[in-house]
Amino acid sequence: MSDTSRAGNETWDRRDFLKAGAAAGLGAALGGLTVPGCAGIPKTGLAPVFDYRPIERVRVGFVGVGGMGSNHVRNFLEIEGVEVRAVCDIVEDKVARIQGWVQEAGQPKPEGYSRGKTDFKRMCERDDLDLVFTATPWEWHVPVCLAAMENGKHAATEVPAAVTIDDCWKLVETSEKTRKHCVMMENCCYDRRELMVLNMVRKGLLGELLHAEAGYLHDLRSLKFSNTGEGLWRLAHSVRRNGNLYPTHGLGPVAQRMNINRGDRFDYLVSMSSPSRGLNLYAAKQFGADHPSATKAYALGDVNVSLIRTVNGLTITLVHDCSNPRPYSRIDLTQGTRGIVRGYPDQIYIEGRSPGDAWEPLEKYAAEYEHPLWKGMQARAAGKGHGGMDFIEDYRLVETLRKGDPPDMDVYDAADWSVVCELSERSVANRSRPMDFPDFTRGRWKNRAPIGIIEA
Amino acid sequence: MSDTSRAGNETWDRRDFLKAGAAAGLGAALGGLTVPGCAGIPKTGLAPVFDYRPIERVRVGFVGVGGMGSNHVRNFLEIEGVEVRAVCDIVEDKVARIQGWVQEAGQPKPEGYSRGKTDFKRMCERDDLDLVFTATPWEWHVPVCLAAMENGKHAATEVPAAVTIDDCWKLVETSEKTRKHCVMMENCCYDRRELMVLNMVRKGLLGELLHAEAGYLHDLRSLKFSNTGEGLWRLAHSVRRNGNLYPTHGLGPVAQRMNINRGDRFDYLVSMSSPSRGLNLYAAKQFGADHPSATKAYALGDVNVSLIRTVNGLTITLVHDCSNPRPYSRIDLTQGTRGIVRGYPDQIYIEGRSPGDAWEPLEKYAAEYEHPLWKGMQARAAGKGHGGMDFIEDYRLVETLRKGDPPDMDVYDAADWSVVCELSERSVANRSRPMDFPDFTRGRWKNRAPIGIIEA
Repeated sequence: MSDTSRAGNETWDRRDFLKAGAAAGLGAALGGLTVPGCAGIPKTGLAPVFDYRPIERVRVGFVGVGGMGSNHVRNFLEIEGVEVRAVCDIVEDKVARIQGWVQEAGQPKPEGYSRGKTDFKRMCERDDLDLVFTATPWEWHVPVCLAAMENGKHAATEVPAAVTIDDCWKLVETSEKTRKHCVMMENCCYDRRELMVLNMVRKGLLGELLHAEAGYLHDLRSLKFSNTGEGLWRLAHSVRRNGNLYPTHGLGPVAQRMNINRGDRFDYLVSMSSPSRGLNLYAAKQFGADHPSATKAYALGDVNVSLIRTVNGLTITLVHDCSNPRPYSRIDLTQGTRGIVRGYPDQIYIEGRSPGDAWEPLEKYAAEYEHPLWKGMQARAAGKGHGGMDFIEDYRLVETLRKGDPPDMDVYDAADWSVVCELSERSVANRSRPMDFPDFTRGRWKNRAPIGIIEA
Repeated sequence: MSDTSRAGNETWDRRDFLKAGAAAGLGAALGGLTVPGCAGIPKTGLAPVFDYRPIERVRVGFVGVGGMGSNHVRNFLEIEGVEVRAVCDIVEDKVARIQGWVQEAGQPKPEGYSRGKTDFKRMCERDDLDLVFTATPWEWHVPVCLAAMENGKHAATEVPAAVTIDDCWKLVETSEKTRKHCVMMENCCYDRRELMVLNMVRKGLLGELLHAEAGYLHDLRSLKFSNTGEGLWRLAHSVRRNGNLYPTHGLGPVAQRMNINRGDRFDYLVSMSSPSRGLNLYAAKQFGADHPSATKAYALGDVNVSLIRTVNGLTITLVHDCSNPRPYSRIDLTQGTRGIVRGYPDQIYIEGRSPGDAWEPLEKYAAEYEHPLWKGMQARAAGKGHGGMDFIEDYRLVETLRKGDPPDMDVYDAADWSVVCELSERSVANRSRPMDFPDFTRGRWKNRAPIGIIEA
C-alpha cells in the first residue's frame, strides 16, 4: 500500500469500490458463503463505501500498551505482514519496553509518543500507518479511533468501543465519512466454544434460534482496587454508573449467531440492577471500615440483568456481575427449536440425538462441529492470551486488512454491542423502562450478509 | 373442632384471636423463630384476624382428583388426623376410584359429587368439612377456593392459585373477610435443595441476599397435546396467553428466602417473550403439517423471561419455557454477598471456603445444611410424588391446621406468586414496560415475621 492511499480514499466512489472489491476477491469471499436464510451478497445500494483496498504489509501504531495493549503487540509481532511503526503511552517506560520487543523481533525501533494524554493525535498524523490500535482506558477509545480515522487510518479498539450513545454514533459517522474501518476487538468471538456454537448454528444443529443468555460474570474486586493497570481507572465507572458496564464479551458472540445487523437487529432493552454491596464490603475488609474506599457510595448495582429483544422477536438475557465472589462465567446459552447449548459447564441437548432429558458434554460434538478457524489456528494460538482467542482475533484483523476483506466485526457491531452501556443505565434509572436501540445501519441491516464461517 | 366453628368465626374479634392463639401455642411457635434480621412476632395491628383454632382431626373434601389431585389424596390417607369426607370430580369414575382408596384405608366411604362443573358448591355447603382442597384446571381454582371460604372452610389449591390480578384480589379479600386460610400448594418449596438453600440463607452462609434466578423450564409438549389429563385444558392457555403461565415453582422458594411479604415485597416486573415456534413444530411432526393443531396460532412465546425487583432492591430473573426440547430445570440460583448457589447441576461457591474460582458440589454442604424438615421427613416421604416433596407439603398443611399454626404459605403468598401471570402478560403486550405488583398485604409486609425453619 502506497502513501497515497489516504488522499486517494477521499475521492473514492461507488464504482471505484466495486472495482477494487472485485480486484481484492471481495465478491468471491462473500459469494462463497452458504448461510441458511442469508440474503446473499449485500445490496450495497446507498450503503457507505468502505476502504477495502488490500494492504500487503500492515503498518500499525499502538496507543496504550499496558496489560491488554502489550499482549496485542506480542501477538502482532508473531503475525506475518505486520510492521509496528509507532507506540504511544503516557508512561514512557511502557513505550520503551515495547520498542525493545519490536527491535528484538527484528524490526526497526518504532517511534515513541509519550508527551501527555493526547499525544496519540500526533501519532495519528504520521503518514506511514495503516492501522491505529487502542487499548487505553475506556474513555479514550473514541478519541483515539476518531483521530485515527480522521487521519486516514483504520482503527481497532479494545472493548467497549464507547460508553455513550453519542460516542457510538460518532464512531459510525466518522467511519462512514472517512471510509475507514473501526473494528472493536471482541476477543470472545474467537474463543473455542463461541466459535463452535457459531458453526453449529450455521449448520442448523439448533434449528431456528429463539433465545440466548450471556454475560460477563467475573469477580474483579481486586482488580478494581488495584494501584496498577486497570485499577487506576476502572473503578471510577463503578462509582458513577449503574447498568451493564461491560456488555460485549457476552453479547458479541450471540449477536453473530443471531445475524444482528445482518438480517435482524436489536430493537429494545430493559435493564435492572441489584443493590450495590460488594465493593464497599471488599474495601472494608482490605483497607478497614473507615477507609474512603469503604465508605464511598458506588452507583453500580452488583448484579445487572438486561433483556434485549430483536426486531425478529428473538430474546437475550444479558448479565453483568463483577463485584461479588463467584466463579467466572459468560453463561453463553443459545437455544433454538431443535436444541440448546450452554457454557460453565459446557453442555448441549439436541432433540432426537441427546439421550432422554439429559445434557451431554459439548466436547462430544467437537469432532463434528469444531470451527475451522479454531482448528486451523489452534497450534499457533496455544499458550497465548486468554486461551488462544486473543491471537486468533489479532490474526483475523491483520488477515482481513491484508486481503481487503470486510472485518469480521465492523463499526456497526462496535456501536451496537457497546451502546448497551448507556441504554442499560438509562433503563435502570427509569424503573427498567424499555429503551430503543438506535439503528446504526440506517435500515441496511435488512440486506447485509451474515458473517461467514471463516477458515484459517 | 365442633360444627359451630363456622358460625363462631363470624363473630371473632382480635381479643378472641389472641386468646385462641395463645391457647394453641401460636405465640410460642412464632417466638421460637430465630431469623437474622427478622422483625420478631408480627405486629398484627390492623391486620386481619385469621382462624387459627387448632383442628384435631382435619375433615377434608377434594375437588378434582385427576393426576395431582389423586396424588394428594394418597398422601392425605397416610397422614395421621385426617378424614377424607367428600370427593368431587366431573368424572364419576374418578370419584369412585377415590372412594375405593379411602375405604381401603379404613375410613368410611366419602360422599361423591359429580353433578357437573359447579357441583363443588354443593360439597362446600356441607357442615362437616374443615378443608377443601382443589386440584382442578387452573381456571377453577378461584371459584372453588371462594366457595370453600364463603362456606367457612379453609382452602388449599394447586398452582397457580389464580391467573388474573382480579382473581388474586378476590382470594385475599375473601380470606380476610371469612378469616379462613387460602393456601397455595407450592410443592417446590419443600424439595430437598430448596429447603437446604432456605436453611443456608437463614444461617447467613450466603451473606446478604442480592439476586436470584428461577423458573419452570420443562418440555411439556407431549402433555399439552395429550388427549387425557392436563392435555384436555392446559393447551388452551398457550393459545390465548403470552407471558409466564406458571411462575410459582421457581418463584415460591426464592420469595421465602427473600422474606417477600415479610420485610420486603415485590415492587415491579418487566417481561419479554421469544417467538412462538415449538407447539406448531411439535404438532406438525406428530399429527401432520395440515392438522389444525399444527396450523393454529399460539400466543405463547416459547421462552418468556421476567425481571422482578423488590422494594428493598433485590432482583430476580424468572423464566418460563415449556414448548421446546430441553432438559428440565428450575434454575434455582441464589446469590448473596458471600456466595452463590445454583441448581442443575446443584453447585455452590462460598468465599473463603470454596477453592479458587471453582464451584463445589452442593452435596458437600448437605451434612451441615440439610433442612431439619427434610431430615425429619425423608424416610416417610421417600418414593412418593416428585421425589417426596409433595408428601412433605401435604404433611405440613395438615400439621399447621392441627396445631393452629399459620400456614407456611398464606393467602398473600398465593396472590403474590400467582399475580406474575397477568403482570407478565401485560408487560409482554406493552413492549416490556414495567408493571407494578399490587400490595396484597396493604402495608403489613413491613412487619410480618419471616417463616421459620420448621422441624418435622
